[in-house]
Amino acid sequence: MRNFKVTLAYDGSGFSGWQVQPGAATIQNTLASAIGRITGEKVLPQGSGRTDAGVHALGQVASFALESAIPAEGLLIALNDVLPASVRVLEVNEASPEFHARKCARAKTYRYRIYRGAICPPFLANYVWHYPYPLDEDVMKQAAEFVLGEHDFTSFAAVDPEREREGEAVSNVRQILSSSWARDSQEFTYTVRGSGFLHHMVRNLVGTFVLVGKGTLQPTDITRILEERSRSAAGATAPASGLYLVNVEY
Amino acid sequence: MRNFKVTLAYDGSGFSGWQVQPGAATIQNTLASAIGRITGEKVLPQGSGRTDAGVHALGQVASFALESAIPAEGLLIALNDVLPASVRVLEVNEASPEFHARKCARAKTYRYRIYRGAICPPFLANYVWHYPYPLDEDVMKQAAEFVLGEHDFTSFAAVDPEREREGEAVSNVRQILSSSWARDSQEFTYTVRGSGFLHHMVRNLVGTFVLVGKGTLQPTDITRILEERSRSAAGATAPASGLYLVNVEY
Repeated sequence: MRNFKVTLAYDGSGFSGWQVQPGAATIQNTLASAIGRITGEKVLPQGSGRTDAGVHALGQVASFALESAIPAEGLLIALNDVLPASVRVLEVNEASPEFHARKCARAKTYRYRIYRGAICPPFLANYVWHYPYPLDEDVMKQAAEFVLGEHDFTSFAAVDPEREREGEAVSNVRQILSSSWARDSQEFTYTVRGSGFLHHMVRNLVGTFVLVGKGTLQPTDITRILEERSRSAAGATAPASGLYLVNVEY
Repeated sequence: MRNFKVTLAYDGSGFSGWQVQPGAATIQNTLASAIGRITGEKVLPQGSGRTDAGVHALGQVASFALESAIPAEGLLIALNDVLPASVRVLEVNEASPEFHARKCARAKTYRYRIYRGAICPPFLANYVWHYPYPLDEDVMKQAAEFVLGEHDFTSFAAVDPEREREGEAVSNVRQILSSSWARDSQEFTYTVRGSGFLHHMVRNLVGTFVLVGKGTLQPTDITRILEERSRSAAGATAPASGLYLVNVEY
């Protein structure tokens, strides 16, 4: 058996997220069946983490082992030939037998795009959150700094029955290594890098930062919300369409 | 009755082109039913020209007359509220009673995007022609200049039964005001401005320029192809996904 690490970009618009679900088009399904068509082998690629329906990836990572003698470069070409154009394999590397895309991940970066113009170009409709209403972007920049460092992110985590069922350690403590907003023309974009992320965490952070931008909350409220360890203390979940998994570090 | 001129952008990916067709989602249908929902009036907006299935617009223009007293600005807001996010109204202006989006058009600009990188980003799949094979881009730039000026474009025109049925003058002479290719990072883009365009004309020009880029034809063959006045003399029709109606001049 040879173990592979593949890096993927995908347009999440037409998919019901990463994870295999009966009767739904998911990225994991689509990748598994492409591998099956090429090698005849039935494998379930392990992603670095799930992405939800409508969430995009610029550099998702998956791992799987194959009996096949196909070279990495040949696998890359064959996968891009078989996969739909909405899923692209950017890189295929042979990995050590111990490599596992989720268990070995050391850090991830996500990006969230808000389109601020009055009229959202039709070409961006599935790729941003269109939010044309007033926002104080300076206080949102300040608020983003309050999540830096190690915190319990329970207030920003969706209840995740799957995770508890898998019997994993359920600590909600994560380390945030960078967290900032930037303006580029009509877009206001949040980029966050951390040791790991809970379910809906980036979208819940964005939804809460927007409450700061509207003046409903102050930047320092972020610290209070973290301390409350209660989902109801934070803002609503921002739409999936604006979120991108940028890369995974190992 | 007040006559309106509206400027539209749309993502053509999910539409069967501009023109009303029974049982198909078209831009003209979608716009007509949005106007109907807002004003209660049944109108058929006239476009500056048809765009085919999968072709996009950055600045399509349509005209229609309404009894309603709704102000132009209110109509813009209401239309963008009712239309799907894949169709946006960029501008609404009151026009003189004689204004007709097709009959009054004096010039149009189209753009055609070719993606040259080995792996096409999934987010561009519906918005470019992915052509990763070798092309001599310099000779394609030369070839583009051979269509400048007034020519009979029969060789680059699809047979168009609709147009003959309407009983219009069927001259295939058009004037091309600018015609050039430009490279920007991984994209090679053709921009053409002219007095008018025949059905499939831009896509047939692009398909023929690609034959020049591959070395199958020489730039000077463009003149010969124009003179032959035969569709079979030119190259294949390039895919719809790369084409954009940029603007219409009046």
